[in-house]
Amino acid sequence: MPGEATPYAACCDIGGTKVLLGLVDAHGSILARERYLLGQERAPQPIVEELVTRLRRLAAAAGLPWEAAIGIGCSAAVMADVERGIVLSAPNLFGAHQNVPLREILQQMAGRPALIEMDAYAAALGEAWQGSGMGVDYFVYVVVGTGIGAGILMHGQVFRGWHGTAGELGHTIIDPDGPPCNCGRRGCLEALAAGPAIARRAQEALQRGHRGMMPELAGAGQVTAEVVFEAARQGDPLAREIVQEVAGYLAIGLSNLIHLLNPRVIALGGGVMRGGSYLLLPLLREETARRCGSWVDMEGTQLVVAALGEEAGLLGAARLVWMRAASA
Amino acid sequence: MPGEATPYAACCDIGGTKVLLGLVDAHGSILARERYLLGQERAPQPIVEELVTRLRRLAAAAGLPWEAAIGIGCSAAVMADVERGIVLSAPNLFGAHQNVPLREILQQMAGRPALIEMDAYAAALGEAWQGSGMGVDYFVYVVVGTGIGAGILMHGQVFRGWHGTAGELGHTIIDPDGPPCNCGRRGCLEALAAGPAIARRAQEALQRGHRGMMPELAGAGQVTAEVVFEAARQGDPLAREIVQEVAGYLAIGLSNLIHLLNPRVIALGGGVMRGGSYLLLPLLREETARRCGSWVDMEGTQLVVAALGEEAGLLGAARLVWMRAASA
Repeated sequence: MPGEATPYAACCDIGGTKVLLGLVDAHGSILARERYLLGQERAPQPIVEELVTRLRRLAAAAGLPWEAAIGIGCSAAVMADVERGIVLSAPNLFGAHQNVPLREILQQMAGRPALIEMDAYAAALGEAWQGSGMGVDYFVYVVVGTGIGAGILMHGQVFRGWHGTAGELGHTIIDPDGPPCNCGRRGCLEALAAGPAIARRAQEALQRGHRGMMPELAGAGQVTAEVVFEAARQGDPLAREIVQEVAGYLAIGLSNLIHLLNPRVIALGGGVMRGGSYLLLPLLREETARRCGSWVDMEGTQLVVAALGEEAGLLGAARLVWMRAASA
Repeated sequence: MPGEATPYAACCDIGGTKVLLGLVDAHGSILARERYLLGQERAPQPIVEELVTRLRRLAAAAGLPWEAAIGIGCSAAVMADVERGIVLSAPNLFGAHQNVPLREILQQMAGRPALIEMDAYAAALGEAWQGSGMGVDYFVYVVVGTGIGAGILMHGQVFRGWHGTAGELGHTIIDPDGPPCNCGRRGCLEALAAGPAIARRAQEALQRGHRGMMPELAGAGQVTAEVVFEAARQGDPLAREIVQEVAGYLAIGLSNLIHLLNPRVIALGGGVMRGGSYLLLPLLREETARRCGSWVDMEGTQLVVAALGEEAGLLGAARLVWMRAASA
């Protein structure tokens, strides 16, 4: 009987190119999951239609009746007015469509109440619920991938900022004379240490005639951040130098964040961390402690790799649904 | 009759060299005030004894019975564990005395419940109660004086951080190759743009042979930040150049803070702002908007001069007392 079925939150985490779906119970267990690539479609209605169709199919395949879905939680790599449920701008997802009422569309298509959240904040909520931020009063989740961003929590509550853009760690200025950033300024952390910046640094060095393992590791493709980390792991001197430099820039950004926010735990996630954490984490701890000096007790702030990997955003979306259920 | 007397919070704001006392009613009106200089005494007991004696005398002179004091609120330029009421370290105030149970000493000597708060947080609370942060969800108070610090509020609650050291804006790194800071590192905002850094910049330029109005304005004394601002106001080219540089550094720090916290209002207080706001504020608005670029909507963050001047901390201390009374 439906009434006796396990209740669950039907959730999605919409990234730049792929979507992760999951059905999550009240304890944070993922009862079923699915991943698929976004197509060329940019119109909101068909994108949400596919998403909801896949969620319902996923539930049916897992023997979970749709009536037991207590709500839809959606994390997305977008700029959003979360309270109104509107995606303000998301060129990679909705193309030129602006002010998309994503929550309303989800609710109508799914026949369930929906909540949306921006990806870094959702990941922070997920980590705080089930991962490296459990029981932590002042917690920051930092994503280092194609971009660099942060989700800041105080006593479990998102520090959202007035326009909902708090956490733009990637656009804090690390070196006023540094390389140009795609935001139009110079020396932003993102322009120095995000995935594309790491790749560009290697490509430029190779163009200047540096050799080593990277061209071979890249094969027919471009040298990417992954290639740099793999070459560094194998001992390539140029790659090691690049990783060291990147760690130095990230450490300045993290040190500034620690001075401003004094978090108990900073959890590092995102593609660059997944590819390079075994090299980056010890360097980051060392460099950040050095950058913090004696003024701020680095003993006080733990730098850890995010515990939930790619599922942080999905679990954060589920957390929203379950929190609302608890307060209803 | 005492029972009918106006209830008030008996408050103090202990700075580096002086103490401001005030008796504050529930509406934020300061019923009586007094200022005095700290002596050479460094032992906590006699310092607090003088403070309480002066508070009681102030109340008596204003015709306010001590029994109508609902509590003691104390803002202080110290590192403190506010919840436990302990001053961890305060070289300028308590010398070598560490872990001073200031709240307990205050309570015993005053015979009233007491609360303590660190100065930047208290000033933020004061401005949020009666000044430039009224009704503002995400509010930051920045003090630019001998040091540079910030008090961060989310929905009226202090973002304190794990060790209670959040807001160390002065020790965010603006230029990794910049001048040494007294924290042992290089290029901190404080080493570039606080009062002593402004004075040093002028002194060094004068030693290199630059001339202009500043030596004359300083008279027999050293060139201070106040002298620099006064000379700039009178059109001295070197002083104007220094003010412009300082505004540039402060703007990078503020831009980084805006990207991380996305506040609605940043209120600027402290001695440097009091001395230089008429020159600094327009420069800061221009430079910060430029540093924020198109990525973060500077329309969204207002940079203003703090409304309460030197009384912000005192009113913040009073706010603490009245908030506790309301929640009791």
